Amino acid sequence: MNNLSRCLVLGGKGFLGSHLVDALLDRGQQVRVFDRPNVMFPSAAPISRSRLEVFEGDFASDADTAAAVVGCDICYHLVSTTLPKSSNADPLFDIETNLLGSVRLLNHAVRNGVKKIVFVSSGGTVYGKTLRLPVEEGHPTNPISSYGITKLAIEKYLGLFLELHGLEYSVVRLSNPYGERQRTHASQGVIAVFLGKVLRGEVLEIWGDGSVVRDYVYIADVIRALLAAADYQGDERILNIGSGEGKSLNEIMDVIGQVTGKDVMRTYVKARSFDVPASVLSISRASNALNWRPEVPLVEGVKRTAAWIMSQPSSEL
Amino acid sequence: MNNLSRCLVLGGKGFLGSHLVDALLDRGQQVRVFDRPNVMFPSAAPISRSRLEVFEGDFASDADTAAAVVGCDICYHLVSTTLPKSSNADPLFDIETNLLGSVRLLNHAVRNGVKKIVFVSSGGTVYGKTLRLPVEEGHPTNPISSYGITKLAIEKYLGLFLELHGLEYSVVRLSNPYGERQRTHASQGVIAVFLGKVLRGEVLEIWGDGSVVRDYVYIADVIRALLAAADYQGDERILNIGSGEGKSLNEIMDVIGQVTGKDVMRTYVKARSFDVPASVLSISRASNALNWRPEVPLVEGVKRTAAWIMSQPSSEL
Repeated sequence: MNNLSRCLVLGGKGFLGSHLVDALLDRGQQVRVFDRPNVMFPSAAPISRSRLEVFEGDFASDADTAAAVVGCDICYHLVSTTLPKSSNADPLFDIETNLLGSVRLLNHAVRNGVKKIVFVSSGGTVYGKTLRLPVEEGHPTNPISSYGITKLAIEKYLGLFLELHGLEYSVVRLSNPYGERQRTHASQGVIAVFLGKVLRGEVLEIWGDGSVVRDYVYIADVIRALLAAADYQGDERILNIGSGEGKSLNEIMDVIGQVTGKDVMRTYVKARSFDVPASVLSISRASNALNWRPEVPLVEGVKRTAAWIMSQPSSEL
Repeated sequence: MNNLSRCLVLGGKGFLGSHLVDALLDRGQQVRVFDRPNVMFPSAAPISRSRLEVFEGDFASDADTAAAVVGCDICYHLVSTTLPKSSNADPLFDIETNLLGSVRLLNHAVRNGVKKIVFVSSGGTVYGKTLRLPVEEGHPTNPISSYGITKLAIEKYLGLFLELHGLEYSVVRLSNPYGERQRTHASQGVIAVFLGKVLRGEVLEIWGDGSVVRDYVYIADVIRALLAAADYQGDERILNIGSGEGKSLNEIMDVIGQVTGKDVMRTYVKARSFDVPASVLSISRASNALNWRPEVPLVEGVKRTAAWIMSQPSSEL
């Protein structure tokens, strides 16, 4: 991808998106952010803004996505209107907004000559209950959330649009990203949420016995992978991106205690039905295809995240 | 399933559906047909109609499907608003009608205490390009039509609704069914369409060189499988149903020539991009789980189909 290419980042004001935008601007690229109005753009880096354009609209609006793709070569699709839990409460909304919105986007991408879509899918939900760990890309995909089903369906439509219209794509099946700018008051992003509570002296609420295992990957490692996926021209179109290592919630709390030097108070409550017991991604395919490896160990990433949280105005903490 | 259970057949006026309705009535069951208004119910069998109820509505209407499921124990879902070709011309319509309609149906099924859904999926499209033949249920699923993607997504939602709400289901991934009552003027159902043309003395138009291989299964064999799938209480929820044998279009034309005693005139035209070169289903899983096997050989099935077509008023032929 040359430096003159213009990138569209759908969801560019979010945690993941804002880091991606900074990285693209650092590489000298033209960047158009598409996100909802009234959402703050969280980037604080002293980077050149002359190559940044912010387009405010709604992903569920056909007219908005049609206008957003005009003139763009690479489209990073990071939008999701639901979370696994909320998606199960209303699968119809999930399909109407995420799946229909994404297929409309693909239609507009074809009409406007977009060269490639990089889609952030969900390594934690598309596989469902895992038969073996770490889970490879060829594992059966039987999601136990609508969130996972719509992500999977979008992946299939990307495959179809390549076949029918030659629209290139990479799917990044992401594990649990964490790092600076992740909201501490949120219903996802356990490391930032737990850090926030511990730093405020609050008690953590743990669903289940704390043995639930996830694959946590530091934001800077994710961004390098997204850039590499956009540049990549080989045949692997579905790539797991994670740390490749599983950590239980109990281990995460130990790391948070170690990093903050505080007691991590907790209560254990009933497990949630839509949480798979363990999710750890095999990252061999991405390592080989993208010549990429995660570089920031968990303790170091949690340290940086904690430092960022403590640097924020007290309203954020 | 006992004889007092009430069955809903969505798409009950269609080729598949009308045969299923006849078979259910023959078993002494209560049957409610859901289908569009202004569609003829093609059954001609002298069966008792006192246990048959016809409910006319549109599958895309939430109110219609809500009303249709009330009081039903078993729901056979045979509706599709698209064909593989038309689905690719407008994937949004495909999602809006088939996928959203099906998920609405599942919502209503849960609320109304439906015991089981039997869903007719597509063995010819959900797998996409096959890596090995005959194709088993565990084969990767990468459809090259929107039709196949929405069928697959509906399968995933059935899995989700079992997990979340305990709604039982069987998915029948059907190959190419053929037999009496299949329309000779249609854009699918190659055996009936070819028979119609040959009996009218018309020239067949073959996409490609006639080497495209499909798995053709006779309607009565399909219906026995659907009934067995409804009764089945084991753990296999995805079942291929077909003949288990592949036949090329050229072989089909040979059989038609043999059965009708006529010259089968043909022209060969450009292949269609959404036709996979070969599709043959492995039926081992269904054979074991349902104790079912196809019983009517191709020549016999084509004879019966030809006899039915010739028995029709000339407008149908």
